[in-house]
Formats: sequence, C-alpha cells, structure tokens
Amino acid sequence: MWNNNKICNLLNIKYPIIQGGMVYNSGAVLVAAVSEAGGLGLLGSGSMRPEELRSAIGEVRSMTDKPFGVNLPLLFKQAGESLEVALEEDVKIFFTSAGSPKRVANKLKEAGCTLVHVVASPALAVKCEDAGCDAIVCEGFEAGGHNGREELTSLVLTQLCVDAVSIPVISAGGIATGSQMAAMIALGASGVQIGSRFAVTEESSGHLNYKQAVVDGTDTQLVLKKHIPVRLLQNKFRDMITEAELGGADRQKLEQILGTGRARSGMFDGDVVEGELEIGQVAAQIKDIPKVAEVFNRLITDYCEAVKRLGA
Amino acid sequence: MWNNNKICNLLNIKYPIIQGGMVYNSGAVLVAAVSEAGGLGLLGSGSMRPEELRSAIGEVRSMTDKPFGVNLPLLFKQAGESLEVALEEDVKIFFTSAGSPKRVANKLKEAGCTLVHVVASPALAVKCEDAGCDAIVCEGFEAGGHNGREELTSLVLTQLCVDAVSIPVISAGGIATGSQMAAMIALGASGVQIGSRFAVTEESSGHLNYKQAVVDGTDTQLVLKKHIPVRLLQNKFRDMITEAELGGADRQKLEQILGTGRARSGMFDGDVVEGELEIGQVAAQIKDIPKVAEVFNRLITDYCEAVKRLGA
Repeated sequence: MWNNNKICNLLNIKYPIIQGGMVYNSGAVLVAAVSEAGGLGLLGSGSMRPEELRSAIGEVRSMTDKPFGVNLPLLFKQAGESLEVALEEDVKIFFTSAGSPKRVANKLKEAGCTLVHVVASPALAVKCEDAGCDAIVCEGFEAGGHNGREELTSLVLTQLCVDAVSIPVISAGGIATGSQMAAMIALGASGVQIGSRFAVTEESSGHLNYKQAVVDGTDTQLVLKKHIPVRLLQNKFRDMITEAELGGADRQKLEQILGTGRARSGMFDGDVVEGELEIGQVAAQIKDIPKVAEVFNRLITDYCEAVKRLGA
Repeated sequence: MWNNNKICNLLNIKYPIIQGGMVYNSGAVLVAAVSEAGGLGLLGSGSMRPEELRSAIGEVRSMTDKPFGVNLPLLFKQAGESLEVALEEDVKIFFTSAGSPKRVANKLKEAGCTLVHVVASPALAVKCEDAGCDAIVCEGFEAGGHNGREELTSLVLTQLCVDAVSIPVISAGGIATGSQMAAMIALGASGVQIGSRFAVTEESSGHLNYKQAVVDGTDTQLVLKKHIPVRLLQNKFRDMITEAELGGADRQKLEQILGTGRARSGMFDGDVVEGELEIGQVAAQIKDIPKVAEVFNRLITDYCEAVKRLGA
C-alpha cells in the first residue's frame, strides 16, 4: 500500500505516520516505540537542555535501530546548541519549526540530513521549498499547542499547500484516526504528523494526570493570540486567560498571568488545575491511554475502512 | 459511484452535493442551476421576505423539475411565516439552522417533508437525531458566514458526528474541491454542503463586486464572537471590528459598530469596503467566477483523482 509513498521513501519508514515532537511528551521511550511500530518518532528538543537531548538520542538508539529524528523549534534559546549536539550524535532527520528554515538549511544539507519544516500557511510552504526543505508539515488550526495566526484548518491548509509546492506535504492537526489520515491522503498529503493521540499513550513522557485530563475532557480553545497562540484544554488556568482576553487584556498583562513554567507544570509535573495543558481538538475523540503499537493497529485498520468507503 | 449513497437516495439527487442556502447569494437562478447539475439547490430564505420566498419557489419550478429545498434559519423573525409559505407551495425538503429542530420537526414530518438540521457540535447532532431529523449538516470552523462557538473544524467535527449518530452526516465548511469532498467522504460523511464555491459563480445572486472581492482576497477571520460569530473576508469594516475586539469592546459596542444591513450592503449591493463579506476559508482557493455546471465538472473530476490517490 505504501510502496510508492514519498514520505515512506524519503524517511525510510513503513507507514507515512510521523509522531509530532511535542514538548514534555516526546521523550526517548515514545520515540523508540513509534519508530519500532513503523512510523517516525521525533524527540521534542524544545523541552530538553542540549545535554538531555544527547542522552535521549543515545536512549532511543539503545531501544531501536529504526530511523528517528529531532524536532527543533528554531526560536528557542538553545536551538543552536541543540542542533550541534544532534549533529555530533549523527542524527540524520530534522523537523524544524517556529522560525525560518533558511537559518539551518545549508548546514543540514551539507551534513547530509533530511530537513522538514512546519508551516501554517501556503506562503511559508513556498519559502521552505525555495530554502531546500525536503518536505513540509502543514499544521492546521485544530492542532494542539502552539499554532499559527492564520487559523487555516487542516482541510483548507493542506489543499492550499499541495497546490502551492512540489515537495511532499505532511498534514498535521486534527488527525487521531485512520479515517482522518485517509482524508488528508485524499487531499494530496503524502503523510500525516500526529501529536495528541501519541501524547496520550503509555509510552509518552507526559504526566499521567495530564493524559487522564485529556481522556476526561473535550473542550479545547486557541488562546493567547496576543502572545503566541496556543491550543489548551479547559482548566482553571485557561479560564483565567480567557476571562482576561475577553476583558481586553494587553500582551503584557497576559504574559504576567502566564508567568513561566506553566507548560512543564501542567504536562510534565501533572498540575492539571494551574498548568498549561496543550492538546488538539481531537481531545474530544481520545478516550483511553493505549500503547503506541495499539494506536498503530487502530490507525491502519481504520485507514483501510476509510479507503473502502470511497468505493475505489 | 453513488448508487448506494444515503444522501443521494434520501434527496433523490445524482451527486451528494448540497448547495448551502446562503443569505443574498442563494436565489432561484443558483438553486435551479445546482439542482439541474445533479446536486440539491437550497433557497436562502434568511434574506427573503415570505412573499419573496413564494416567488422564488415558483421561479425555481419554472427552471427545473429536479428536487430542491429551502434553508430556514429558525431564529429569524419571519421563520414561522416563511415555513408556512414553503409548505403552502409544497416544498418537500427543509434544511433548518440557528435554533432547535424540535420546534418544527413534528409539523414537517406530518407534512411528509425531509428535515435536515445544521449543527456545530456532536451534542447537537444527537439532539437532531432524537428529534427525528433525517440527516444533519455538520459545519466546521472554516465555513463562511455565521458559525458555532465550539470552533471545531470540519476534520474533527465530521469524525465526532459520524461516531455520534446513525443518521447520515453531510459535511460543510472548507469544501471547494473534489479532493476536499473525498476527504469528508473518507471520514464517513455521506455528502457535502458547499457554500462559498457556489456563492462565487455566475448564477449566484450576490453582487459582482462581492464575488470579485473573494477572487482577489484570501484572508478570512471569524469575528464578532461576543455577538454571533461570523467569518468575514478582510475589508475596512472587518478591520474596524477586529480593532474594537482587540481593545476589549463589549457586545453592545460591537453591535453599535455593526449597525444594520451590513450583510445586504456587502454581498447584495456590492459595498466591499463598508459591507459584511461573508465567505469561508476556501476564499484563498477561489480564483474565478465559473458557471455552476463547470463547478460540478471540476468537483467530480477532482473527486475521482482523489479516490485514485488512496490507491484503493
């Protein structure tokens, strides 16, 4: 089924399923499990110090000999240092986000690496192609965590991106089932990147309280649009932000309420009341905390059902 | 291809393609053209006085003997009167929105009519099934015009609705190509409702200035969330609203800026500066003003391409 798939061929994987490199959720155990299952695991370097990233790379290698990669948010303070560490450790696949891929494209191409950048608009997709990226991830409004200002949904954004560029497009945001995966492949995407569904698995490094809050909850909203837009599950903290925003709070006031360390306290330390619980709209679909291998079984079975529905 | 399609069978149409009953755009000429092409045209009664609706129904019948229906926003002042007119004129298909279908379900079922209600959440989809609706339209965040507060995108909302109800689901919002249609069918929708793409056709009753503004523009945003959320194309009016909202304007202040008649002046009278230009995110995909028959040709051709992509 995937013999001619461009993403499978580019990344040397069995299924065109990428696990989003999420902060606090994408440690070595999750990454190795996804790569072992036939997808591509991505270490979330955005919540690791460079030396923690080095350890995590080694841990992944101790658990799998399959391909894996590193997600690198280019605007993070330690991005340059983390990039050097990953190159020293001979990482060959980089998914970059939050910034311009031009900054790193030459260096990574010279090192023989594959470079994929995350975009929220077709205009940035074109810039990525021009910069030499091998593929793009287009991430829609429904995605969890940090999000673009364009608010284009995966259905529209994916269509715009496949029409705008010749490099393969990986669709992200709103994908937790094989049917949703099939929908994106029907649009012309070559693969999918899945975050939330993998965050709520046994192998994810997120806190159990956070995973259980997602299982119990359904309501997410994109907030902090005057700061950096982020999609959060409803809790006391998000309600405080929403109330401030409705009252017209400016960026400075919002940053004051946000403070520091909220993402870590919510997702890693398990404070589901005062912490930031990043998750996509598919939270409403997530009803259990399975193993990664089980998620893959469901995705592939449901994908085949979806293909049948199209009566092809 | 559509022999066993539930929506084709329910509505007695060739393709499971419904034209959204949009204010100021969905007059008799558009409705007849869509029904003649093999879809289902819907008169947009939300911008017609009851006697205008009566005339429009007669006009449609003078142009086609194919099935068509009426869209009825239940919260509109004249909804009751318009419903009576449509029943007097022997209309058999009703798409209701903006309100509870319980209000009208018994009356319409007794009259032997087909009833479909528009929803923005799976919870309301279940209520529609319980109320006796024959199908639902689930309309995502990317749709043009008035929109739900849940902000669920078509990709997530459609998945949630097909999982929640047994009656057929028609997906709306973000659909302007056959690939986008195939994506929704892959998810389990039985059909699609298309608004924006039909608003920008020769046969739509919208003003040419409005159609041209959509062809030229790409940027839409959901605004007026403290009033009734509505997705609008960027223009001077929308910028005024956005600025007021960022400053924390309350509902009363926003209603003062909005005034009355903005939708008519923008879409019907062609004031593309001060008027309200309702359109979906697919505005970014719309690059011409074709005939309805040509839209159908493109949809079906591209749908078949999309099915091939799934390699089924």
